Amino acid sequence: MPDTTPPQVARHGFTPALAERLRALLGDRGMITDPAEMRGYVTEWRGLWTGRSPAILRPASTAECAEAVRLCAEAGVRMVPQAGNTSLVGASVPHEAGDEVVISVGRMNRILDLDPADMTMTVEAGAVLASVQKAAEEAGCLFPLSLGSEGTAQIGGLLGTNAGGNATLRYGNARDLVLGLEVVLPDGRVLDMLRRLRKDNTGYCLRHLFIGAEGTLGIITRAVLKLFPRPSDIQLAFAAVPSVEAALALLNRFQRHDGASLSAFEYMGRFGLELVFRHIPGAADPFGARHEHYCLVELSSPRPDAGLRHGLEAVLEGAYADGLVLDATIAESEAQRASLWRLREEHSEAQKREGASIKNDVSVPVSRVPDLIAQASAACRALIPGVRVCAFGHVGDGNIHFNLSAPEGADGAAFLARWDEVAEAVNGVVRALGGSFSAEHGVGRLKTRTLAAWRAGPELDLMRAIKRTIDPGNLMNPGKVVISA
Amino acid sequence: MPDTTPPQVARHGFTPALAERLRALLGDRGMITDPAEMRGYVTEWRGLWTGRSPAILRPASTAECAEAVRLCAEAGVRMVPQAGNTSLVGASVPHEAGDEVVISVGRMNRILDLDPADMTMTVEAGAVLASVQKAAEEAGCLFPLSLGSEGTAQIGGLLGTNAGGNATLRYGNARDLVLGLEVVLPDGRVLDMLRRLRKDNTGYCLRHLFIGAEGTLGIITRAVLKLFPRPSDIQLAFAAVPSVEAALALLNRFQRHDGASLSAFEYMGRFGLELVFRHIPGAADPFGARHEHYCLVELSSPRPDAGLRHGLEAVLEGAYADGLVLDATIAESEAQRASLWRLREEHSEAQKREGASIKNDVSVPVSRVPDLIAQASAACRALIPGVRVCAFGHVGDGNIHFNLSAPEGADGAAFLARWDEVAEAVNGVVRALGGSFSAEHGVGRLKTRTLAAWRAGPELDLMRAIKRTIDPGNLMNPGKVVISA
Repeated sequence: MPDTTPPQVARHGFTPALAERLRALLGDRGMITDPAEMRGYVTEWRGLWTGRSPAILRPASTAECAEAVRLCAEAGVRMVPQAGNTSLVGASVPHEAGDEVVISVGRMNRILDLDPADMTMTVEAGAVLASVQKAAEEAGCLFPLSLGSEGTAQIGGLLGTNAGGNATLRYGNARDLVLGLEVVLPDGRVLDMLRRLRKDNTGYCLRHLFIGAEGTLGIITRAVLKLFPRPSDIQLAFAAVPSVEAALALLNRFQRHDGASLSAFEYMGRFGLELVFRHIPGAADPFGARHEHYCLVELSSPRPDAGLRHGLEAVLEGAYADGLVLDATIAESEAQRASLWRLREEHSEAQKREGASIKNDVSVPVSRVPDLIAQASAACRALIPGVRVCAFGHVGDGNIHFNLSAPEGADGAAFLARWDEVAEAVNGVVRALGGSFSAEHGVGRLKTRTLAAWRAGPELDLMRAIKRTIDPGNLMNPGKVVISA
Repeated sequence: MPDTTPPQVARHGFTPALAERLRALLGDRGMITDPAEMRGYVTEWRGLWTGRSPAILRPASTAECAEAVRLCAEAGVRMVPQAGNTSLVGASVPHEAGDEVVISVGRMNRILDLDPADMTMTVEAGAVLASVQKAAEEAGCLFPLSLGSEGTAQIGGLLGTNAGGNATLRYGNARDLVLGLEVVLPDGRVLDMLRRLRKDNTGYCLRHLFIGAEGTLGIITRAVLKLFPRPSDIQLAFAAVPSVEAALALLNRFQRHDGASLSAFEYMGRFGLELVFRHIPGAADPFGARHEHYCLVELSSPRPDAGLRHGLEAVLEGAYADGLVLDATIAESEAQRASLWRLREEHSEAQKREGASIKNDVSVPVSRVPDLIAQASAACRALIPGVRVCAFGHVGDGNIHFNLSAPEGADGAAFLARWDEVAEAVNGVVRALGGSFSAEHGVGRLKTRTLAAWRAGPELDLMRAIKRTIDPGNLMNPGKVVISA
């Protein structure tokens, strides 16, 4: 691959003339220049980064979006695509320099088509995940993507970052839920691949390049999503297990029993659960005795007579007899199910209330999860004696949120100052186990250097070559994901 | 995107000096130059294309393959990657000009790793699909990819063409079964993405570019494949239905009943079935009465107690009561299951024995299958009065093999001479329905012009730009899939 410097586009910047043309194109509702109104678009939601921008463009259609991009590209103005702006790695906010225009897809939020025979749904990029889930449900279907930010996150961003979440074990990541895609390229041309075909072998599969590219190759404007039948029977168990190895063995038993009905398998350690008991009102230990390791197991099926309850009990009883399960409880109602899920879902909130914490979104091959937790815990404890390990997450995907709380009584700021050091220690273990430094959250601004280090060689070269090919002016979300050498 | 002519690489051709270096690298077993021995590598298996080649290179490892590619690239010699050579579109054979070296991965056929806890398997590209299936089965797992040529087709080719097959409805296409990939790039560098992670959001997803590229962007040398639990209960029904619409409604009922256990849903029309009864010894009509439309429905689960039989009967009974099913039979033994599957699997053979036939591997959105069959039949009958429509296939994926047999008593050669005309008529219908001219088989040499016509505009431009970026010398499988403007 040629490793040439990208052609330099003359940057006239965001001139009054350009502003006027964009205002004429988008109308007053489609363009924000008032700094107060702009705040939510230029700031990362936790306040970790605050950027600046000459204008927020809010096109109402693909055609408006394409024309806005064309005008900006022509003027050499850099663009930051934005959907729900819930990125955890700074992918969706502009830099501090203030020369990047934000292009928000938030007004393009229609559900264009829902075909229950095809089991597909065509939506605009600004549709909020919760509204997509709801529309599917009303048609008797399921759109399985589900995660904490679903009330705010929009389809364009979820696809742009290849979001994960709780249902990945059964339904895959966001990219696995997409049949067709429409993208506005960095020069303003529209790439229309909005096909709703289950089988289509006609040349290079381009959609997977844009899914997960975090807006650096273009702006996703529409997508054809896959739907699934809606479950009618859901069974949930909370089980105490003697070790992480036992959690894995239990996962494997459920997979072999009926992998197709296993819809979640989550791991939690004792420390995280104790934080939930301590900080979340109403959360209580389901068991009389204290245990060190726990799993949440969910089975679901569209069939009311699939025998899930019987199967759940049978696998748990067999595992109990073999010493893989120490105690278990099965939810008897939807309310009980919700309260057991809360023990898992409130981990982040509980950890936040406990004080300073350092987070690592890592994955390893599923079989190496026990090694990951053991070795990364040892590495962090060697670095910071007394550090409290809060490891939990999607063990069925090999994706562990390996979080750390400051030692009891330690200074929070001093602890947080060691974030990079801790991340490096954890990543060292992850890399040796053949894992990934970013399982779900992506690269954004936060991890560009880690990406460059881990993928150095032909893989990084090829990513850079593709960036140069599709965005030779480096105008689309520059400085994110893949940065120049 | 810049649309520049690719840099011209000086073509010294396959000189004696290069041959000597390759012989030294690969050894006598690794290089074939005897024309008789070369025949199976340079000829398409049905004899539709016969190419020529100065040598067949058969590296025994990724390192050998990479070095052989590097030497050829340096000398400007064009290369045709080849696995099992079962392509139906001429993707895996060299051109007639005789200046392309074939690089066969057939000797790289080891299964390198099988981890039943991860449910992954790492294999070399030359591993035959049947042997991969067998290794998975011996470990209590399932590798679900399954198609007619599985005794010959090799993993490298199956991924290179994103193969489909019978299990796509439940498990997806070949690309959905891959976690990691290793590719030798056109300049001989090795792209190592052999990760076995379920979640990994670290930059552009490159593996999906190479999967389905039919060897035009590099040579797939290894892959990490996903495994699934092996089914223990399998139930199969053969049903007569009043219309294609009813077949679709029945599919939808099975999906809503329990989509996760539905492992096949195939459609057959009366004419194809009659050919099977006529030409395949032992094949007999399961029903006393004649019907016009039929479905084959398979449910499977790793659970022996999943109640599949009961569910199958319940859905069929409900559909019968509502007039969606006219008659049905359920296999009572493995032997009966095999004989019902044969009614579907022998369609190609029966059609061949009947005489001249024209084949179309097309797909449409699932809900448009009835329109496809009705409109394409009308179009073909208008073109060739008396033409006999043999439509069958994976209705659950929207993928219909829309084949045509010559009119009774017609001259076969004259009928076949109208192939392009017929394909154009069928493709016209398919395109209007938002479908694809190649559902499973790919583009190869056969459909490059159709690809260029259907994908003209930004999509084709981007495919070409990617080809130029990764293979600037146009050395890797030139003239296949994406050809220059």
